[in-house]
Amino acid sequence: MKFSAQQIADLVNGKVIGNPEEMVSYISKIEDGIPGTLTFLGGEKYQEFLKGNKASIILISEKLIPQDISELPTIISVEDAYSAFNQLLRFYNEMKEKKTGVEEPVFISNNVTLGKDLFIGAFAYIASNVKIGNNTKIYPQAYLGDNVVIGENCLIGPGVKIYNDCIIGNNCVIHGGTVIGADGFGFSQSKEGYEKVPQLGNVIIEDDVEIGANCTIDRATIGSTLIKKGVKLDNLIQIAHNVEVGQHTVIASQAGVAGSSKIGQWSMIGGQVGISGHLKVGDNVILQAQSGITNDVDNNERLFGSPAIKYIKYQKSFVYFKQLPEIIKRIEKLEKDSKTQSES
Amino acid sequence: MKFSAQQIADLVNGKVIGNPEEMVSYISKIEDGIPGTLTFLGGEKYQEFLKGNKASIILISEKLIPQDISELPTIISVEDAYSAFNQLLRFYNEMKEKKTGVEEPVFISNNVTLGKDLFIGAFAYIASNVKIGNNTKIYPQAYLGDNVVIGENCLIGPGVKIYNDCIIGNNCVIHGGTVIGADGFGFSQSKEGYEKVPQLGNVIIEDDVEIGANCTIDRATIGSTLIKKGVKLDNLIQIAHNVEVGQHTVIASQAGVAGSSKIGQWSMIGGQVGISGHLKVGDNVILQAQSGITNDVDNNERLFGSPAIKYIKYQKSFVYFKQLPEIIKRIEKLEKDSKTQSES
Amino acid sequence: MKFSAQQIADLVNGKVIGNPEEMVSYISKIEDGIPGTLTFLGGEKYQEFLKGNKASIILISEKLIPQDISELPTIISVEDAYSAFNQLLRFYNEMKEKKTGVEEPVFISNNVTLGKDLFIGAFAYIASNVKIGNNTKIYPQAYLGDNVVIGENCLIGPGVKIYNDCIIGNNCVIHGGTVIGADGFGFSQSKEGYEKVPQLGNVIIEDDVEIGANCTIDRATIGSTLIKKGVKLDNLIQIAHNVEVGQHTVIASQAGVAGSSKIGQWSMIGGQVGISGHLKVGDNVILQAQSGITNDVDNNERLFGSPAIKYIKYQKSFVYFKQLPEIIKRIEKLEKDSKTQSES
Repeated sequence: MKFSAQQIADLVNGKVIGNPEEMVSYISKIEDGIPGTLTFLGGEKYQEFLKGNKASIILISEKLIPQDISELPTIISVEDAYSAFNQLLRFYNEMKEKKTGVEEPVFISNNVTLGKDLFIGAFAYIASNVKIGNNTKIYPQAYLGDNVVIGENCLIGPGVKIYNDCIIGNNCVIHGGTVIGADGFGFSQSKEGYEKVPQLGNVIIEDDVEIGANCTIDRATIGSTLIKKGVKLDNLIQIAHNVEVGQHTVIASQAGVAGSSKIGQWSMIGGQVGISGHLKVGDNVILQAQSGITNDVDNNERLFGSPAIKYIKYQKSFVYFKQLPEIIKRIEKLEKDSKTQSES
Repeated sequence: MKFSAQQIADLVNGKVIGNPEEMVSYISKIEDGIPGTLTFLGGEKYQEFLKGNKASIILISEKLIPQDISELPTIISVEDAYSAFNQLLRFYNEMKEKKTGVEEPVFISNNVTLGKDLFIGAFAYIASNVKIGNNTKIYPQAYLGDNVVIGENCLIGPGVKIYNDCIIGNNCVIHGGTVIGADGFGFSQSKEGYEKVPQLGNVIIEDDVEIGANCTIDRATIGSTLIKKGVKLDNLIQIAHNVEVGQHTVIASQAGVAGSSKIGQWSMIGGQVGISGHLKVGDNVILQAQSGITNDVDNNERLFGSPAIKYIKYQKSFVYFKQLPEIIKRIEKLEKDSKTQSES
Repeated sequence: MKFSAQQIADLVNGKVIGNPEEMVSYISKIEDGIPGTLTFLGGEKYQEFLKGNKASIILISEKLIPQDISELPTIISVEDAYSAFNQLLRFYNEMKEKKTGVEEPVFISNNVTLGKDLFIGAFAYIASNVKIGNNTKIYPQAYLGDNVVIGENCLIGPGVKIYNDCIIGNNCVIHGGTVIGADGFGFSQSKEGYEKVPQLGNVIIEDDVEIGANCTIDRATIGSTLIKKGVKLDNLIQIAHNVEVGQHTVIASQAGVAGSSKIGQWSMIGGQVGISGHLKVGDNVILQAQSGITNDVDNNERLFGSPAIKYIKYQKSFVYFKQLPEIIKRIEKLEKDSKTQSES
């Protein structure tokens, strides 16, 4: 896709200073400034990158345009370059994602219910009794098991697997390779070995949820594993059976939540955090990266460490942990002095 | 699938009290009690949920049926509701999994050996010289490389990839997206960079093994990476080349075992545990979540921490770690007193 | 594939002692020595395994051949058995990988550019404007989005997903299930929830890179996430948006690098390490397994712990951490003595 300076200016209510026919097909950072791309001046501190910049078009906030523009590329002048740029990004992204239609070959069972303006990529598998809402995109090689329900305006990435009976809300994005609804890890032990506990529940993903690539969200034993409205999950995250993640909670990459734990809303869980099973983690909680959560967590807590304690406490103790060799020397000195004293 | 109260009572040797034609199509927890579902009373402590429960059928142990049943749904009375319920779950699960036949399109090489009553889902890829035992289900988009052997009664989930020459026993379950037999991580260093050490072994998975979603089990350099009978692996687990996992050992999500380590039988490895390479971990070992194992582990040990030490020792030291700021104050007081003493 | 002792001897400039028609089809370790296989004597310490070895052919360095060879299998005598064996492995591996041609069905858009001697496996998906270099193998069920460029001599494993606009160099290996170019984890917070920041950059993988199974490498917000020449990544690794990994750096399984961090060249990053965002990690750095990196790291540093400090310092402090209960007893004794002294 190529756009002229004039086309872009029209989109963002801007004014072209330079060649309105200047063409760009991509975007670059102002530090990089690559020919054939559009860049933008995000704030005063980046002004040093203006002069001699090799981008073909620069989007600038009116008040930041320098007096001497002789060595500058074509300019699009707007009120607020940052918000205009974000507007362009969203527009560009939507253009790119405007795929519709059903490619061949796909596997679609007879009794499925398909909305309007869908994209279904080649080698996608849509099992019995699946329902898909309007404007949803099912990328190639995705797998939707029996009775799966997917809402409107969703993007189901390439090779995503959604097992039978799972339910996805509206406006959800699920990236490539993520597996939703595989069996929870439940076994009962006997002398001969472990016997499988059937996992008959499902996974429910509410509206506006984004899930990264290669995550695993297991189905409940009975009932539902629940990812509530607005939750954002990064890549390679494990959500075990019967877990609940509250509204607008964000979880960073490679974190894991063990079975039946409930996490509140608006919490932030760092990368590689582990949360044990059957816990209650509150609202507005911050768990630092790599923490290990082994007890319930109150609202508004900030924790760190494995096992995790209050963030400030962990930081303080860790300062002294690093000094332990010197601290031991102080104790040895005290012991020596004490011996001298008692002998004197 | 719909079942009447009478059909269910017949399956579990129970007696219907109420409407034998009451229909259910799903299961709910007694706390939730959803119309159209069957629930069960698991023990006395759940009796509070009986009255006014909205489930359509309740399975109850004979001796727990209350005198006043006027506000209760249709009852199925059995000797032991818990075991009857588990029996139903297993029956229900088996019904659901009764897929057979070969969907279209699939890719099946000419010289493969296929057992009876198989299911092979669409877009599955079955390479040269593959052998699959009776009653095994290969879900859509699975990949079986050259010479792969899979036993009887297995379930190979959607998008599972099993590389050439790997061997899977009987009664194994492998969930979606798991990769078995990719190259081990072996390189020899030179001044110009790292040169690949060819990985020519395979992976052998013995009988009754269950492996979660999006795991990676690498092929051996020479010989076999070995997962022994009855092992259960959760999701997102890494098993490196030439590792052996002993019978009936269970490993929780996101744990990793580095190259050539051997783990004994009946051990329990917590989530996000890391085990270094070339170690020997014994039988009946318990490794707490997030532990980092850097030395051999004796039978019956329980370890914690990174690097891991005995669980009790770690717990004790961690108690004092949390008190380090107060401990330092005690040392400072001692130092002050000692100075006073020596001056006096 | 079967080979005779004479064929093998010819390949490695060796001399057959025994039956030149002895056939082998596989390789075994000298400790295992399985009939029908070739093994090799890697050094003097393995000489005990020679006598009575059941392998069909043994490759031995000339100077290590014992005087009495009466109980030995057929021998191939070479100058250096270790390097001859590696030569054989590589030869064997290349033989196995000699797949070419395009299987059916595949999805290939009209306007793609395909090199010579390609292998494209069934159910692979090749979107618009993709370019693939000579001798590259695209395994079954791989996904290549719009405008993807892949160099020569690459191996793209089964079910690998490469999103639109990503670029892969020459001689790269990417194992099954890895996802390259999914959206970076970028959201801006408002009172109503998190709004997605469009991720419009790409991923660039330079030459000679190997990436394990089920990794995730996210596309940049703007610009490129960059994996430089010769980098080796193990399985289940997370590389976030806008990260750079320098030449010849190796990263072990389940490690994660958060957004915009830059890692130098020839560094070694252990398993399950976490690196926070916006950091600069130098050249020749060693990060011990499970470390948590929260600050910039100088060249040549070796770090350990979470948060990570110098390896030696962590080791020393950890020695005393383990002794904390005894150290507290020493402090208690000092306190008691001090009290006695001050009272005396």
